[in-house]
Amino acid sequence: MVAYDFQLLLKYLLEHGVAWAPSQEIVYRDQVRYTYTDMYNRVLRLTSALKQMGVKEGTKVGVLEWDSHRYLEMYFGIPGIGAVLHTINPRLSPENLVYTMEHAEDEVLIFHEDFFALVEQVRPRLPSIRNYILITDKEKPDIKEPALSLSKGVDAEYEEFLVGASPLDALPDLDENTQATLSYTTGTTGKPKGVYFTHRQLVLHTFAGWGSLPDICNYGPMGKHEVYMPLTPMFHVHAWGVPYWATVYGLKQVYPGRYDPEMLLRLIVEEKATFSHCVPTILQMVITAAEAKGSDLSHWRVVTGGARLTKGLAMAARELGIKITGGYGLSESCPLLTISNLKPFMEEEWDEDRQLDWMVKTGFVMPLVQIRVVGPDGKDVAPDGTETGEIVVRSPWLTPGYYKDPERTEELWAGGWMHTGDVANVDEYGYFQIVDRIKDVIKSGGEWIVSLELENLLSLHEDVLEAAVIGIPDEKWDERPLAIIVPVEGAEERITAEAMQEHLQKSVADGVIAKWAVPEHYVFVEELPRTSVGKIDKKVLRSQHQTGEL
Amino acid sequence: MVAYDFQLLLKYLLEHGVAWAPSQEIVYRDQVRYTYTDMYNRVLRLTSALKQMGVKEGTKVGVLEWDSHRYLEMYFGIPGIGAVLHTINPRLSPENLVYTMEHAEDEVLIFHEDFFALVEQVRPRLPSIRNYILITDKEKPDIKEPALSLSKGVDAEYEEFLVGASPLDALPDLDENTQATLSYTTGTTGKPKGVYFTHRQLVLHTFAGWGSLPDICNYGPMGKHEVYMPLTPMFHVHAWGVPYWATVYGLKQVYPGRYDPEMLLRLIVEEKATFSHCVPTILQMVITAAEAKGSDLSHWRVVTGGARLTKGLAMAARELGIKITGGYGLSESCPLLTISNLKPFMEEEWDEDRQLDWMVKTGFVMPLVQIRVVGPDGKDVAPDGTETGEIVVRSPWLTPGYYKDPERTEELWAGGWMHTGDVANVDEYGYFQIVDRIKDVIKSGGEWIVSLELENLLSLHEDVLEAAVIGIPDEKWDERPLAIIVPVEGAEERITAEAMQEHLQKSVADGVIAKWAVPEHYVFVEELPRTSVGKIDKKVLRSQHQTGEL
Repeated sequence: MVAYDFQLLLKYLLEHGVAWAPSQEIVYRDQVRYTYTDMYNRVLRLTSALKQMGVKEGTKVGVLEWDSHRYLEMYFGIPGIGAVLHTINPRLSPENLVYTMEHAEDEVLIFHEDFFALVEQVRPRLPSIRNYILITDKEKPDIKEPALSLSKGVDAEYEEFLVGASPLDALPDLDENTQATLSYTTGTTGKPKGVYFTHRQLVLHTFAGWGSLPDICNYGPMGKHEVYMPLTPMFHVHAWGVPYWATVYGLKQVYPGRYDPEMLLRLIVEEKATFSHCVPTILQMVITAAEAKGSDLSHWRVVTGGARLTKGLAMAARELGIKITGGYGLSESCPLLTISNLKPFMEEEWDEDRQLDWMVKTGFVMPLVQIRVVGPDGKDVAPDGTETGEIVVRSPWLTPGYYKDPERTEELWAGGWMHTGDVANVDEYGYFQIVDRIKDVIKSGGEWIVSLELENLLSLHEDVLEAAVIGIPDEKWDERPLAIIVPVEGAEERITAEAMQEHLQKSVADGVIAKWAVPEHYVFVEELPRTSVGKIDKKVLRSQHQTGEL
Repeated sequence: MVAYDFQLLLKYLLEHGVAWAPSQEIVYRDQVRYTYTDMYNRVLRLTSALKQMGVKEGTKVGVLEWDSHRYLEMYFGIPGIGAVLHTINPRLSPENLVYTMEHAEDEVLIFHEDFFALVEQVRPRLPSIRNYILITDKEKPDIKEPALSLSKGVDAEYEEFLVGASPLDALPDLDENTQATLSYTTGTTGKPKGVYFTHRQLVLHTFAGWGSLPDICNYGPMGKHEVYMPLTPMFHVHAWGVPYWATVYGLKQVYPGRYDPEMLLRLIVEEKATFSHCVPTILQMVITAAEAKGSDLSHWRVVTGGARLTKGLAMAARELGIKITGGYGLSESCPLLTISNLKPFMEEEWDEDRQLDWMVKTGFVMPLVQIRVVGPDGKDVAPDGTETGEIVVRSPWLTPGYYKDPERTEELWAGGWMHTGDVANVDEYGYFQIVDRIKDVIKSGGEWIVSLELENLLSLHEDVLEAAVIGIPDEKWDERPLAIIVPVEGAEERITAEAMQEHLQKSVADGVIAKWAVPEHYVFVEELPRTSVGKIDKKVLRSQHQTGEL
């Protein structure tokens, strides 16, 4: 073979962006403003300094940092020399933080001063880390001052680390299947699980994933004038991979540091951000801040994901002029899988309200992603918007498995399809709608009962404050639903199981739920157990009610 | 490895397009109008029928057809089962046609009735072809009529071939490095050379090549409402790969059959084509037809390539409202390499005339393409818009070599870079401009003299009708330029070598050419030899003047 065997490497995204837009701006809060050329030079310094420090192909470099230009440099610099960028989630408990860094076998830790106390606390338990690099937002940091002193083992301050290195001429060639990133995802049970992606995967995710968005996003296509600002933390599945996309096209990029509603809003308005992505909670936060200030956000387009976008939130966003589109993905999927863009005929023929109903759906599958919705019988569900099954996927950008965890990898990839654990239906137009997590679905008589649906219906009864439905063991049906209900104040005495059943029978008559989905079992309680983030803790409920004896 | 090893296959482009836009239209002239669903079903029938006929992975299937919905079906169907789509250029001489089909080892030939006489003529010399399938535009073709009869060995008529097959359930899985297409390119010397591309290459070309265009094309980004109509024949490097791009995004597609200016214009206007690509000659043809009719073509965006887009033609196009962008590629490069889109600051700060100067350049490099311009000293030229060198490239979508031709493959890929044979400069903004073919450049004293430049300057003299400049052997300088000049009528007597040199010295004084580029040798002739397509035949000129003795 005399032809050059071109590999799909992250460095080509960077090199193209710099060549196209050498003077384009990258902004960090109100503190730093520099060009793509500056960024590229700093990447070449960073890689040189890391190599000097002994970082090699395969070395894991952990990063604890807010959204910044420095993080962008590390997105390219660390994988650029074949090392692995471990994006650490600072919101993990110290226990889980130690676990992930130990499990990843991090050898270098680059961390922001905000996490100094945290790092101090966990470092005695992390002997594998041989180098600590400190990031500070101070203009003239003094790493000799007591709190940040070398005596505590900080080897370098990030800016000095860069200045001290002579830049590489260029990033080296690598095999496209070289691992580039590693991050950990926490479920409700068990230890955090590592997901990892190669250069090839991230490049394909950039072009066939986000790169196809300009063509298939709502509110018209996007172009070379976009201004990108992430609103999903860069430690979370590499900010959904969007910084790679923004860089290859040389877009202006705005990094907001630690999320603070005032600063976010100010950056969106003053830097004229046109494209962001975030979870609904963050969108709500920005909307609240914008409403208070009366800001016009009609230049801002947002793709949401991570949780269901409610119609109410979408409408509140639209009132401020925000151009909203729903999307879906997982840590395991790099993450982009679907996007809720309307088909041309929907734009032309449907009224606004119906359009919105589809724009808040889980979405339509991206190019190079295959999605099946597999029902309890192992067959694909009918595309009727009702029948439910688990979403399983194939795509070139899914994690090859859970890092160093063959057992859970087998489960994830059972049957050659990646199991998302999400239960959904699919409508006649091919749009998916997630209705539940598979662990919360009640498996009854070979069929699935969607707990969220029963909870929604029960909460519509005037005597119900809130409701949780879980599966309890049943000899005949395997599982049956148990409704655990908190009555509204004053209804404690009069509320009955019969009233609940009668209420649900109306939905049976309307065809909303099947007859056999109506629970026989009800308990009324004063309050429901909650997790640390305030969600109803079904794990606790299940252990309280596991026997099935009521 | 339990994870599914997702391969980059053409079938995923088709499957996504059909899922997204099942009712979207595909139009063939004023004759056929059907949906993506119809197309997909026909692809599944075609593949089944071909398998039935013994077509296997690696079987070469030759196609002689105009631009049509059927060709689109074959773009997916033939490679879809691992066979190789050989797009045959009907404009080749019968001699070269036989050569390419023999060299390709075609086993099946699918051909349009327009080529019946041609096929009849060459078939005795093509024993490797065991099946002939006839395409006809007639509504009820009768392949038993004498001219098309089975006795002449036509095995099936395309429509009947499809109807008679029971469709495959789906296209099979393949290795992404499976060869998908094969076509032949003719130089001015030697036999046609085969270039070939794999599924992986075509998929990457789709997403990182054309797929990045919506974001980086002039006149605003493109979206899901585009209507695509090819104007480069589908037998020429698979219509520059654009049908694959149009299909994955489910765009309306319009296929014009055999090119006829009236029909082309009618389709552009009536079907509201928004995006085409063509060589300047075809653009000129459409403009002439549109001017005659006073048509408004302001909905039409065109990327030109294959030859230099002159500013005059670009301005004529703009007067009709046509949105024009220049591009560049070769048969060897799939073909997309550069596109002449303006950077944001050029749109904002430059006047229209200067913008146009850049929009008719060879262009700026696409993502995942690396371009170097290598001067006679083997070093990269300075980005000054003046220094010239050969364009050499790397990209994931370049032909691995010339098919079954290791010797010319070695030349093509000398030093691990693909040699384009094009001589260009590159300006301070990174835009390339081709100035000559390397075989026409005169190598003098370790420097290059661009023949086209001297020809242009000479033609500005009032006594010169036209001029050709070639290199002739020189003992001291290796080569020196010889100018062969046709004087205008009446100037035959007074024209002299001295007058020509004096004329060129002005350009030396202006810094346009170097002093040593001025030829010492001139001959004056009545006419210049021309090739069959009307270009000046420098091969003949060189053989006439090869001794260097004048």
